[in-house]
Amino acid sequence: MSRFADEQDELFRRINSSISLDRRLAPYDLRQSRAHARALAGIGVLSAAELEQLRSALDQVEAEIEQQDFGFAERDEDIHMAIERRVTEIAGPVGGKLHTARSRNDQVATDLALFVREHAQRSLELTTALLTTLLGLAERHRDWPIPGYTHLQRAQPVYLGHHLLAYFWMFRRDAGRFAAAREAASEMPAGSGALAGVNWKLDRAGMADELGFARPQPNSLDAVSNRDFALDHLYACAVCAMHLSRLGGEIVLWSSQEFGFCEPADAFASGSSIMPQKKNPDAAELLRGKAPRVAASLLSLLGTLHGLPLAYSKDMQEDKQPLFDATDNLELCLQAAEAMLAGLRFDRERLASAAEDEFLAATDLADVLVQEGVPFRDAHGLVGGVVRTAIERRKRLSELDDSELDGIPEGARSRVREALRAGETIESKTSLGGTAEARLQDQLGIARSALSELPAG
Amino acid sequence: MSRFADEQDELFRRINSSISLDRRLAPYDLRQSRAHARALAGIGVLSAAELEQLRSALDQVEAEIEQQDFGFAERDEDIHMAIERRVTEIAGPVGGKLHTARSRNDQVATDLALFVREHAQRSLELTTALLTTLLGLAERHRDWPIPGYTHLQRAQPVYLGHHLLAYFWMFRRDAGRFAAAREAASEMPAGSGALAGVNWKLDRAGMADELGFARPQPNSLDAVSNRDFALDHLYACAVCAMHLSRLGGEIVLWSSQEFGFCEPADAFASGSSIMPQKKNPDAAELLRGKAPRVAASLLSLLGTLHGLPLAYSKDMQEDKQPLFDATDNLELCLQAAEAMLAGLRFDRERLASAAEDEFLAATDLADVLVQEGVPFRDAHGLVGGVVRTAIERRKRLSELDDSELDGIPEGARSRVREALRAGETIESKTSLGGTAEARLQDQLGIARSALSELPAG
Amino acid sequence: MSRFADEQDELFRRINSSISLDRRLAPYDLRQSRAHARALAGIGVLSAAELEQLRSALDQVEAEIEQQDFGFAERDEDIHMAIERRVTEIAGPVGGKLHTARSRNDQVATDLALFVREHAQRSLELTTALLTTLLGLAERHRDWPIPGYTHLQRAQPVYLGHHLLAYFWMFRRDAGRFAAAREAASEMPAGSGALAGVNWKLDRAGMADELGFARPQPNSLDAVSNRDFALDHLYACAVCAMHLSRLGGEIVLWSSQEFGFCEPADAFASGSSIMPQKKNPDAAELLRGKAPRVAASLLSLLGTLHGLPLAYSKDMQEDKQPLFDATDNLELCLQAAEAMLAGLRFDRERLASAAEDEFLAATDLADVLVQEGVPFRDAHGLVGGVVRTAIERRKRLSELDDSELDGIPEGARSRVREALRAGETIESKTSLGGTAEARLQDQLGIARSALSELPAG
Amino acid sequence: MSRFADEQDELFRRINSSISLDRRLAPYDLRQSRAHARALAGIGVLSAAELEQLRSALDQVEAEIEQQDFGFAERDEDIHMAIERRVTEIAGPVGGKLHTARSRNDQVATDLALFVREHAQRSLELTTALLTTLLGLAERHRDWPIPGYTHLQRAQPVYLGHHLLAYFWMFRRDAGRFAAAREAASEMPAGSGALAGVNWKLDRAGMADELGFARPQPNSLDAVSNRDFALDHLYACAVCAMHLSRLGGEIVLWSSQEFGFCEPADAFASGSSIMPQKKNPDAAELLRGKAPRVAASLLSLLGTLHGLPLAYSKDMQEDKQPLFDATDNLELCLQAAEAMLAGLRFDRERLASAAEDEFLAATDLADVLVQEGVPFRDAHGLVGGVVRTAIERRKRLSELDDSELDGIPEGARSRVREALRAGETIESKTSLGGTAEARLQDQLGIARSALSELPAG
Repeated sequence: MSRFADEQDELFRRINSSISLDRRLAPYDLRQSRAHARALAGIGVLSAAELEQLRSALDQVEAEIEQQDFGFAERDEDIHMAIERRVTEIAGPVGGKLHTARSRNDQVATDLALFVREHAQRSLELTTALLTTLLGLAERHRDWPIPGYTHLQRAQPVYLGHHLLAYFWMFRRDAGRFAAAREAASEMPAGSGALAGVNWKLDRAGMADELGFARPQPNSLDAVSNRDFALDHLYACAVCAMHLSRLGGEIVLWSSQEFGFCEPADAFASGSSIMPQKKNPDAAELLRGKAPRVAASLLSLLGTLHGLPLAYSKDMQEDKQPLFDATDNLELCLQAAEAMLAGLRFDRERLASAAEDEFLAATDLADVLVQEGVPFRDAHGLVGGVVRTAIERRKRLSELDDSELDGIPEGARSRVREALRAGETIESKTSLGGTAEARLQDQLGIARSALSELPAG
Repeated sequence: MSRFADEQDELFRRINSSISLDRRLAPYDLRQSRAHARALAGIGVLSAAELEQLRSALDQVEAEIEQQDFGFAERDEDIHMAIERRVTEIAGPVGGKLHTARSRNDQVATDLALFVREHAQRSLELTTALLTTLLGLAERHRDWPIPGYTHLQRAQPVYLGHHLLAYFWMFRRDAGRFAAAREAASEMPAGSGALAGVNWKLDRAGMADELGFARPQPNSLDAVSNRDFALDHLYACAVCAMHLSRLGGEIVLWSSQEFGFCEPADAFASGSSIMPQKKNPDAAELLRGKAPRVAASLLSLLGTLHGLPLAYSKDMQEDKQPLFDATDNLELCLQAAEAMLAGLRFDRERLASAAEDEFLAATDLADVLVQEGVPFRDAHGLVGGVVRTAIERRKRLSELDDSELDGIPEGARSRVREALRAGETIESKTSLGGTAEARLQDQLGIARSALSELPAG
Repeated sequence: MSRFADEQDELFRRINSSISLDRRLAPYDLRQSRAHARALAGIGVLSAAELEQLRSALDQVEAEIEQQDFGFAERDEDIHMAIERRVTEIAGPVGGKLHTARSRNDQVATDLALFVREHAQRSLELTTALLTTLLGLAERHRDWPIPGYTHLQRAQPVYLGHHLLAYFWMFRRDAGRFAAAREAASEMPAGSGALAGVNWKLDRAGMADELGFARPQPNSLDAVSNRDFALDHLYACAVCAMHLSRLGGEIVLWSSQEFGFCEPADAFASGSSIMPQKKNPDAAELLRGKAPRVAASLLSLLGTLHGLPLAYSKDMQEDKQPLFDATDNLELCLQAAEAMLAGLRFDRERLASAAEDEFLAATDLADVLVQEGVPFRDAHGLVGGVVRTAIERRKRLSELDDSELDGIPEGARSRVREALRAGETIESKTSLGGTAEARLQDQLGIARSALSELPAG
Repeated sequence: MSRFADEQDELFRRINSSISLDRRLAPYDLRQSRAHARALAGIGVLSAAELEQLRSALDQVEAEIEQQDFGFAERDEDIHMAIERRVTEIAGPVGGKLHTARSRNDQVATDLALFVREHAQRSLELTTALLTTLLGLAERHRDWPIPGYTHLQRAQPVYLGHHLLAYFWMFRRDAGRFAAAREAASEMPAGSGALAGVNWKLDRAGMADELGFARPQPNSLDAVSNRDFALDHLYACAVCAMHLSRLGGEIVLWSSQEFGFCEPADAFASGSSIMPQKKNPDAAELLRGKAPRVAASLLSLLGTLHGLPLAYSKDMQEDKQPLFDATDNLELCLQAAEAMLAGLRFDRERLASAAEDEFLAATDLADVLVQEGVPFRDAHGLVGGVVRTAIERRKRLSELDDSELDGIPEGARSRVREALRAGETIESKTSLGGTAEARLQDQLGIARSALSELPAG
């Protein structure tokens, strides 16, 4: 019996059903139902025997799901109803007691919070693994010169280890965002009922404890309407994906014949269906290509929540697709990035040869003049003129003769020539955070210590 | 043999593989391969017998796929490779000839164009069905007054048929966008090879004809790099979804106890897991809630294409997830919207009672004064004062006595009172496109004629 | 002199120039230049007299800008160049020394970090003010019943104070995100040079201290490429704007004639240009309508950073438009929301009358049966049947006679009738976080304490 | 007098006012008001003398605005009110008649449609100019070989003219989208009143004609709620911006020292504040960097319209910021792209030398084997093995001796060696749309003809 006279339309069932997506919430739903049953027993709604019956039925359901033996029925609208149905088939009428003092509204919010907590933690761990690999790579390449770029123009040489550490710090910040998402998912919605609380004094604090939450959410309306924790996780994923897109993009670039700085392992590349010579850095491209969808998932959920009145509206069912899609994509990308990096081979000679480009020393020439008392802005202009002369005459800077350096004060010319010697430029960047060897050593130390604070670091 | 020494890493295979998504392109891929085989026979790469062998193998593959009997192998990276593998298993070495003069780059672009053409057409037809239902609904409710709103404040009364026709025109424009997407997908990439064309004089015009394309794409690089047609379809979907979100949002609003203007059929509503009295307009909420994801899918693909160098990059594999997701969601929403609308019941009494709110005639009062020679801006102020008096004294406008109308020129007062009579306001909107009965009849005629121009209209 | 032979094209100047936007960074740029000058003096690049000259010129520039007396030159590409030019005009050649040991790359990143730090703090304070107002409002309306809704259908009654506190918790989480953004902006880029560090041992720790940063960024490449802090602030703004859109949306809804739950103050509403009776809740609509653009700004910056190689690329100049736009919009919205809420009048009678709808007690009826030993799922069905009878016979639940309650066990009928008494339902939600008066008092206490931890709380 | 007792709050005025943005609608508003006045005269609301007074006042306002002599008042909420106020100051009480039979709702929709029509046309013209430049560039470089890339790996050589024409076809499609947006803005909202039509039989068809619209919109509710034309224009801008980001991205890449394929003109590059040697392709970077914001603007408006009930809501005021922002950015980008391209210098030697990479002929080697009867898939494998040998032995393909070609059937080896001769590969791509010279000539003809169909082509 119900208040409805007619059956649901098949089209309604298709648009309304979420089970194809939310079946992956089953483990969380089972965990929650166990805690809920215990809480119901605590207030006398279930006898000890009934509790035992229910928990045993929940165990059986779990086993069936794990063994892919669970028979979904056509009418199972969502995973919550499917599990309750099956529990009732197994345990009999007592199954009908399980939904006392709860609503799907607080139930699904709780499942989702458990999902986010677990996957924020998972991303945090995968990020830690990536950081570990990056740090190792940076240490191994700490004295390999490479041109640094701005505007994709060669700018100043840096050590490859310094460059790789730039990514270390990006992902280190991502780890912080995943930790924040995990924290955001630490308040428990369960026990908030449909929107107003329930008529039963469930031990919400006890349930929270059993389920690993820090505390129950303090407002029942907010508890069922809130998806901030999902947004926080999606945001952490989106920024991390953007960082991966930069890493992937650079590897694609560096793997080109023109750069030739690195080559992916065979195990992380693929060929062409038509061109036999091709070795494509597909994994790196996909790190880049997948990022916009992760950002779009964040935007999708923000858009769905836009302007929604309190408390729960069915629109919120659309939280799952973006959350699952982004989570899966990001976790796969983090793992693939780590493994791909581990197998990347850099070409020391090509790197060094590119880094020896004398134009990269231009700033140092200006700094030499500054040390001779020329204001920097003037020094910059003088060196600019010298560069122009060199380009027009197709000479290297060190090949310019005195007449071609006539803008440079005579007394400074020998120091200028010195500054062009290989390795001078890179070692002159001695400011804190700069690329000079000593500073890089300092930085590696800071990075090691930052890493050790993370899980499994 | 290949240029690779090592096997692909399992993680690489997972991030690189697209077969879980692109298997739905199988019908298009088979259609294309048949046309490609015929073209290869036309230039002598295949003998008549070989062509027959291949086409027969393709038929068998099709049957296996349709009967869900097709065995995907672990190494099948994408649907194109899976089909070619199976064709070769069936037909023997001649299967290896099928990929002559083509690349996956032009192949996947062609499959995708076929997909978009078919689904743009499908959306166009579903939109036509929705338009037909809306028009019928408008005709049946052409003389049911309802308050019109701006800022969600009651503004002026309109006929419900007029209100429903506003949606007719929105979806009519969507039909135009779907037609444009279909047109955008009418150039054939096939025959462009990897990026530069092929070494064979395939009869591309003949292939285009066989596959229902208007013409071959004129530039091979563009052919494999172009996803504009997918964007055009995603855009059409996104705007249509936004229109559906407005329709869904209004039905949610109108189904509230406070409005009480309509009630969804039982077959398009659901109950609450906890509250026995609830009848929720879930379908309408989902029309609203799903729209942001469709928009996000457009953005996802735009983002993936951002800044990509020519020609094909692996990033573009990420075109499928947003395209399929948006297409599926939108087609389901269009069908659900049509069926839900067909079953919607409006409450004539509640509508009429709300539409009789006398404040809705305020503009007409001002217009009466204008006809007496008062500049509109002054008339607006005078009537505003009368409204304020009525609110302060908690009276209807028609209950105000002469002393309370002292701002209104004496000569105009009787015409003002007349203008408050039920039905006066709604019938006074006689401008072209206005809600008055005669204008609405005109509009219904225009709508019928617009509908008849569409497929299956 | 420079390496360029030709003048910049006018179109290039237009697309390249950022001064129309970045002039608002002037205060931060001046503050930074003062600290930089002091650091230059610390390493002997500037004498004490030169430092004095520069700082005095910087003071004069600041005064000119504050008094809108600063003459921008046509060639001023950005605010950094404009200030340096003017400093040099004022101080003479020593002005040319100011750019020693720095680049626009680290300079603009530092300005931006200062901007974000200040505006994250500002948003945090505005959020605190909004929280204070919301809490006061909740306290004043802590015993006003209002229907709670799910799916915009009346669900269960709650106290208005409880409903308002749901928003309190949303904005409380926003405060946390603003604090996180402020923290994200606490590492100083300055001293990182173009990308590789500088040739000078600037006292970066001292500069950081002077500028209020927690520490210098440890990697020079990351320092000039990183905009995570801007993203973090944009994200905090986007979620807060979404929360405001929900608040605004509910006020629009509640201000409709059909709901009639509240009315904005005249000072926060506007009229219609044509309809004299209208009083539109424009501010509430704009809280809603502005949210998507804030989210779009986040997406815009994420999109710009997509796939960018290290270190600085000119694309990153496009960080300013979305950051400034979102910041301005959000700060205005927070202020307007606070002021609008402060002036909102609720209609206690309309609220109470709506909350007395007996169907809202349906869950309680089921719970009564549960207490009689009926499993909840069956109880839900029984009450559903009763509701259907009431609807079909157009009766209130309390008007049903015994024969109409025949699904209900006889012994439970009197308790069922009791549960329908006004006020029973709302006071039965006694679980932690529920709406019952005692729980709401608890919650108010928690909220007061949470507020007191915030700045100016 | 009005229905409001209190003044607007200053904060309300700030959030509500749109005049800082919509003042740029002034020319459209004036044009519309002239047509509206004439229509009012046509139905006797204005006498001929009054019409003259109003039109003369409108002329004066136009002059004041053009000469930046128009004094905005603090209370001017939007441009419509500002103009009406000023008209009334100039013309006296008759100014108060101008707003008869219209509302700001239909007025602003009409202004916006005029804006979109004009700017869609403008973008169409700028696109045509860009197409013209691209075509000229393609013709001038029609026989310059360059490596074609997939996955940013060298794939097959193409002519630079062929590569440039790929962009031609992208922008050609954009022209179609701008034309569609112009068409979408060809229905006139004016005369729809607030939402329901007006009480006056304005000659809407005549007004449409005077204002250059194709016809009046047939439904008054839709007329004031519809922003599809703005979305269509934003979408056209977003795809065009994405195309520009690809073009910009390639120029950045090609301008790098590693590629060295082209160099921007000095007039379209800028230097570094610190590094004297730098010549940065800023314009190309900005073409790339600005694209995401244009896409975000589309999303912003889609988001604002999400779920909005009919008819006008104040949220829709947020249509202007994204529309103006995207329009300005895109028009500037189109112009800058055209001018930058015109000044770009390609380095024929670097291009040729890169294009001579023998690995680019690998597909042709496989095709040679196919012509010898080897199935393509096997031929692909054989050549893959040869490539691997060459890489391992660090030889060019043509340097491999017979023993190293032992996978290749003996009879085919001489043809294989022939296929490696310079120029063979590029000229072998003779399929329609391929890069071979004859095909490129065909394509240039098609392009010229496509261009001639466009405005000012």
